[in-house]
Amino acid sequence: MEPNTDNVFNFSAGPAGLPKAVMAKAQSELVNWNNLGTSVMEISHRSKPFIQVAEEAEQDLRDLLNIPENYKVLFCQGGARAQFAAVPLNLLGDSAKATYIDAGYWAESAVKEAKKYCETDVFVAKTEKDGKTAVVPASQWQIAADSAYVHFCPNETIDGIEINDLPNTDKPIVADMSSTILSREIDVSKYGVIYAGAQKNIGPAGICIAIVRDDLLDLASDLLPSFLSYKVLAEKDSMFNTPPTFAWYLSGLVFKWLKQQGGVKAVEQINREKAAILYNHIDGSDFYKNDVHADNRSLMNVPFQLAKPELDGAFLEQAEQRGLVALKGHRAVGGMRASIYNAMSLEGVQALVEFMKEFEQANA
Amino acid sequence: MEPNTDNVFNFSAGPAGLPKAVMAKAQSELVNWNNLGTSVMEISHRSKPFIQVAEEAEQDLRDLLNIPENYKVLFCQGGARAQFAAVPLNLLGDSAKATYIDAGYWAESAVKEAKKYCETDVFVAKTEKDGKTAVVPASQWQIAADSAYVHFCPNETIDGIEINDLPNTDKPIVADMSSTILSREIDVSKYGVIYAGAQKNIGPAGICIAIVRDDLLDLASDLLPSFLSYKVLAEKDSMFNTPPTFAWYLSGLVFKWLKQQGGVKAVEQINREKAAILYNHIDGSDFYKNDVHADNRSLMNVPFQLAKPELDGAFLEQAEQRGLVALKGHRAVGGMRASIYNAMSLEGVQALVEFMKEFEQANA
Repeated sequence: MEPNTDNVFNFSAGPAGLPKAVMAKAQSELVNWNNLGTSVMEISHRSKPFIQVAEEAEQDLRDLLNIPENYKVLFCQGGARAQFAAVPLNLLGDSAKATYIDAGYWAESAVKEAKKYCETDVFVAKTEKDGKTAVVPASQWQIAADSAYVHFCPNETIDGIEINDLPNTDKPIVADMSSTILSREIDVSKYGVIYAGAQKNIGPAGICIAIVRDDLLDLASDLLPSFLSYKVLAEKDSMFNTPPTFAWYLSGLVFKWLKQQGGVKAVEQINREKAAILYNHIDGSDFYKNDVHADNRSLMNVPFQLAKPELDGAFLEQAEQRGLVALKGHRAVGGMRASIYNAMSLEGVQALVEFMKEFEQANA
Repeated sequence: MEPNTDNVFNFSAGPAGLPKAVMAKAQSELVNWNNLGTSVMEISHRSKPFIQVAEEAEQDLRDLLNIPENYKVLFCQGGARAQFAAVPLNLLGDSAKATYIDAGYWAESAVKEAKKYCETDVFVAKTEKDGKTAVVPASQWQIAADSAYVHFCPNETIDGIEINDLPNTDKPIVADMSSTILSREIDVSKYGVIYAGAQKNIGPAGICIAIVRDDLLDLASDLLPSFLSYKVLAEKDSMFNTPPTFAWYLSGLVFKWLKQQGGVKAVEQINREKAAILYNHIDGSDFYKNDVHADNRSLMNVPFQLAKPELDGAFLEQAEQRGLVALKGHRAVGGMRASIYNAMSLEGVQALVEFMKEFEQANA
């Protein structure tokens, strides 16, 4: 049986599916953008038409997240892993220590990199509640008094864990929002720095957004590579070096698409509906399971296991034949994972649940 | 008069024009690549189809440049400016010093960044010869005995200067080839590290190639951000972090296109022909001038000035109406600049020269 390529629902964790309307527009104007006779990726980043793309993308993101004026919006390169180094090098100042909240794979990865630059005060927040994986409430996080900042990852893509609260602290809160940004409303003013690799909810891989409170721009180490400097990027409008222009343009199209959907509030409602359909189906069946506590289940990444793991291969193969692709779990945890970012439609989640029912009936 | 958008010749210095055949292919498969029903930018970098893209791109580049087996080919993020920091942090080892050959804007920029990490021993190689700008022969470059490496930029995009020789030295030679890679044959085995931002002769902005001799992988500073580490990237097949997959794919298409053109040797011949047509026309006229000595004229970037600079605006406007776009000189030097990378056809250069003749006749 040939795979269905006409109506594919792509559950990739990242690089993830982009909105179909965005991809259709990108395709239609790929070789003749803005009536210039060339692609948007073939013009100077300092040309007027590209600067307009850049400025509109920033303004649209500001509108979507209601970003206060005292925050800079930076378009960076290197992804979240670059930020794992950039954060301490930008923010430590005279301090030698930072607090890291560890609730999963990505939080841990940030700690490993930060250890190159400072003492890391790690608070392990992953815990158990009612026999399920959960996260210690933020009000109980221990944050060292001499920390320059506190870092956490509100959505753990691999573990399927989401953190919905914030600590009470006078330290700048730094959040790796790679897999949750724009999925639900947030209050940017509570954060010192928010960063996010684009390849989940923003655009293609190769661009990374950093939203930085402007009082944090003057703390950088002399050893910080200039292209990672928040201050340099802010002063140069993210064009200290040639930016990834096509990724910036595509991110801008995604922002406009989000506005057309009604903004983050409207999208959050759909995301909650999508997640509920999927978790409810998993919880209502003995054939499927997810071991994260309801308090901390990710809205974006839903890992689940079959009661009979020997059927994993058959599940994935048959799903793919239905056009339900990229459902294989991360190699570190196995099983399945449905990433249901903003670009995933309700229809796609319904199609997945329908398939899960049929597969269970055929194999229970 | 409306600009001609049907047959545009794009002389942008970077992000530069890509081969029309490559862009047409990218457009045709943008939303359904490889019959997957999604774009190549919407799949995991660790999926089999993408790994094939990645491996083929590397092999094609190895074929094109005849890269010896003891060199790693790395696909990096952050562009050449990231390499300005990555080079000292990767290569200094126990040494505190590196020699930098300065023959233009980009070489100087590399020095500024390197000063964060080491003592820079700068040899100013820009000179005058017969009243023209030239470069001191490499045999006369002074290289400090205690340097970890010697860095130079063989093609200065802004100055329009090219260096065609190499020093006799036992130090690793590090070359920023952003604007010359793949334009002419080189002997990779003479270099320690070659790096090149993609947005001139490789692909779109947002990816950077580093070709690193494998005995240089173990010299990194503890302070090197992991995503910039040649060793980490080599060990992880350039997938330590999520790579810019679409830029990698497009670069791969460009490599295949170059092979179809007959490889670097064939392309070099066309490039020499293109440059000769343009420089000959400039030299044969009192209306246009280029002040770089013939020994060091860039094959890729041809800056030129009008004898009557007050006509610059009219020149650029009328050129654009003919579909000859992005000819404005860099803001640091003014005048005009025609960047004639691999993707620029002979026909495009001929059209430019034809226009230059007509403009001179009308305005001399």
